[in-house]
Parts: sequence; C-alpha cells; structure tokens
Amino acid sequence: MHPSILVVTLGVADLERALAFYRDGLGLASSGIIATDLHDELSGAAGAIAMFKLDGGLILSLYPRTDLAKDAGIAVDETSRTEFSLGHSVESREEVDALLARARAAGARLTGGPRDRPWGIYSGYFEDPDGHLWEVIWNPELAGDGAA
Amino acid sequence: MHPSILVVTLGVADLERALAFYRDGLGLASSGIIATDLHDELSGAAGAIAMFKLDGGLILSLYPRTDLAKDAGIAVDETSRTEFSLGHSVESREEVDALLARARAAGARLTGGPRDRPWGIYSGYFEDPDGHLWEVIWNPELAGDGAA
Repeated sequence: MHPSILVVTLGVADLERALAFYRDGLGLASSGIIATDLHDELSGAAGAIAMFKLDGGLILSLYPRTDLAKDAGIAVDETSRTEFSLGHSVESREEVDALLARARAAGARLTGGPRDRPWGIYSGYFEDPDGHLWEVIWNPELAGDGAA
Repeated sequence: MHPSILVVTLGVADLERALAFYRDGLGLASSGIIATDLHDELSGAAGAIAMFKLDGGLILSLYPRTDLAKDAGIAVDETSRTEFSLGHSVESREEVDALLARARAAGARLTGGPRDRPWGIYSGYFEDPDGHLWEVIWNPELAGDGAA
C-alpha cells in the first residue's frame, strides 16, 4: 500500500451546520456543498458533500453519516468521539490558545488543555459540532518549519 | 486556521493488533510502538503510540482509545464506524481490487463495493480491525498524477 491518504471524510449530522463551522467559523476555504444532483441508486447514498483543499493535496470532506453508511454498505452506528482525532500544528503557544478560542467562538466545545504534555508538545483539544476531536498542537521541534 | 492536518490519529482497542494490520498486513513502514516510557500524570494518558509517515508530511498514528479519551479529557464512547472514513487513491481499477484483497487477507472486513459510483470513481470500502473505514479509490480524473 502506497503511504498516502487522499481524503479525510468526516461523518456529520447536518451538512450545512458542519460547513458553516469549518468555513465561516474556522475560515477554511470551500466551494460549498457540491454534487447535490448526484444520487447512487444502488446504495441510496446522496452525492452532496462539502470539501476543503488542504496543504499537501489532502482533502477534508464533510458528508452525512447516513450517506457514508449507505456508500460503505454498513449500518449507521451511534456517534462516538473516541474513534479518531485530527492534529493541527501551529507555530506558537499563543496560536494554540488563539485557535482554540476561535473554535469555541464558532461553536466547538473545548476539552483537554491547552497545556504542556510529557511528549514535548503544548496542545489542547476541541470537539467540532459533530463531536470530532481536533488537537491543536505547538511542537517546538517543528519550529522554523512553518505550520505543518 | 491554516488549511492543514499534521496527523490523523486512529483510536484503537489493541495497539499491537492495529500496528500488525497496518505494518505487516498493508505494508506501511513504521518504527513500531514508541514513547512507551512516557506517561501523563495529569490525565493518566500513556504515551505509547505507533506512527506512519505518509506522503506530503502527513502522519497516521495509532493510539489506544482509552488514552485518547484521557488526553482529550473526555469519556470513552462506544465504538462507531460512521464517524469518518479515510480515502486512499490508487491508479487503476485493478489496484483497487488488489488492495481490497490484501486488506481482507490482513484481517479487514470488506463492506461496500468495489464498483463504479455515480460521482465518477471506482471504489470499495474496508474496515480495519477497529472498524475504521477506508475507501480505496480509483479516480480516472487523477490519472497521470500518480497516486495522490
């Protein structure tokens, strides 16, 4: 397997709400909800999705949990916050604090931190409106490399 | 917010099992379980984690759900398969089929597909041993770009 991920798709309850959080709240650029005309007759999954192009060619996408389940051929499970987290790197402690504050203002819930952790980082977590964890990280060892 | 993700952390039930699946089963390079000597007295979270360096600087990491919960300051929720999926791009239909077969041989469960989908891709899904969804994708529009 080639060591790559093309897209990270977040299952969401409300596509408009999730798009508003990431685009309007956090300021990520998106062309909005696309593929609204597409529908998979075989699975019943709708095509409507929102995407954000990130550094390095990675795509962050938002897709209803119900459609993800249909597309993947599985049931819709109960929501859970402990399946994964996304780590976002910034260049200073102050940027960690500022981004957490911005996320909270956009409707996120702050959970762990911000604080120093024994593995050499300063970080804190927020949950997006769907309970998806983000860890905002300042790693002094990455200093000078720019935000990773 | 800078449009970037540094690390995708998967919450797992058994770190050794998850490492074996991704390293030995799928063939991703890893230095194995690291930071086993680290422990966060404040949260109770252990440091032990396994990491894979992916293209574009992205890191895929495996971390016990129980430690993720402690680090993030939340409870351990029930497991769920519909919180997210990771999309992996390959260069042909045959590669989609081959990677799904390899994942199954490594202990994954195949769910949706492989098949053509109305949004112009050929893809299929597998669940890793912790129920994390991967979609293996061939997108003809990406042909010639190499695996993204």
